[in-house]
Amino acid sequence: MREVYQEQLGKLADELASMSTMVGTAMELATKALLETDLELAEQVIEDDVQVDEARARAEEHAFGLLALQAPVASDLRTVISTIHAAEDLERMGDLALHVAKSARRRHPNAVLPPDVQPYFAEMGRIAVKLAGRVHSVIRTQDVEAARGLEEDDDEMDDLHRHLFTVLMSPEWSHGVAAAVDVTLLGRFYERFADHAVSVARRVVFIVTGKMPTG
Amino acid sequence: MREVYQEQLGKLADELASMSTMVGTAMELATKALLETDLELAEQVIEDDVQVDEARARAEEHAFGLLALQAPVASDLRTVISTIHAAEDLERMGDLALHVAKSARRRHPNAVLPPDVQPYFAEMGRIAVKLAGRVHSVIRTQDVEAARGLEEDDDEMDDLHRHLFTVLMSPEWSHGVAAAVDVTLLGRFYERFADHAVSVARRVVFIVTGKMPTG
Repeated sequence: MREVYQEQLGKLADELASMSTMVGTAMELATKALLETDLELAEQVIEDDVQVDEARARAEEHAFGLLALQAPVASDLRTVISTIHAAEDLERMGDLALHVAKSARRRHPNAVLPPDVQPYFAEMGRIAVKLAGRVHSVIRTQDVEAARGLEEDDDEMDDLHRHLFTVLMSPEWSHGVAAAVDVTLLGRFYERFADHAVSVARRVVFIVTGKMPTG
Repeated sequence: MREVYQEQLGKLADELASMSTMVGTAMELATKALLETDLELAEQVIEDDVQVDEARARAEEHAFGLLALQAPVASDLRTVISTIHAAEDLERMGDLALHVAKSARRRHPNAVLPPDVQPYFAEMGRIAVKLAGRVHSVIRTQDVEAARGLEEDDDEMDDLHRHLFTVLMSPEWSHGVAAAVDVTLLGRFYERFADHAVSVARRVVFIVTGKMPTG
């Protein structure tokens, strides 16, 4: 019984790890589409999002199967419920990459971003992809220290996001209101992507230690 | 056994219903604080948000207890997992009301909203509060038709949100970039609040019918 449970739990972790790869790739391509005004790339991200949704549905089905057949209790039960939550976070990360891609598509053939904020998004994209990679490795290794390391990347994202706002709000902003609205929403998408990555890492810490980190 | 299960499930529904009341009140007061530049009210919403978080933790604990002691299968299992998801949606609705209140506090004693967009937010606030009330009644009655009715309110919210963007982007916008950034984020908070309300209603439909509505 225990062996079957461990095997099924391993499969569930595989699914989450694969989802983290998908959403990291989606955010990488969406950022590229945004920075390079690449419609084809944007379309690809938009088209591929359904795969993330399907992976999430599969993960949830497996978790259901595990709960129904194994009826785990105590920490095993918490582990399975945490994977259901983690799958939801990962699906949301996919949605946020999708929003970035849709923004790039909406303004095509124009660029969404004025040149002077492009470096911010290049950097926020880099951190987002790094976070997705770290989520993958945390799911694989269940390394609690590595999981806590994600909080630092998230702080970096928050700093960039705050700084982006000072740029937007400064009297030197010369790109008008429409560009500011786009930049505001895009900034929020990257920030939320990072929040959900941290949330997945916290759930792994919870699975390993039995305690939910606060912060 | 079955009776105990039904009783515990009833308690769980009570907790969700009470959460929907809390987040409806939070959004009502946050909108008032925003429109009337009322710092005290904003502070109250910010302070009270911890009660939503606690209610969510309690709901999740009860759901865990139910899973561990009753080991429900099939549709009963789906019901319990759906309540865990619904509690998460409701907590997020509380967070979004909190964001509105924080925005009002951040700009105090100035108003966040230029006078000409205030009617939009009065209306989006009204719909948000109505949605929270409908969520409460759907949880209480498990009325599938009423649950589907939420989609119409959400469409109304989306229309308002889209219209708000045309106001922001129009050449007549005379309030500058900083106000546009605030209005953009605030608009998104109301829109997401409505999305999560619809998500809770869909989970109730799923509990009752065994089928997740798409759309």
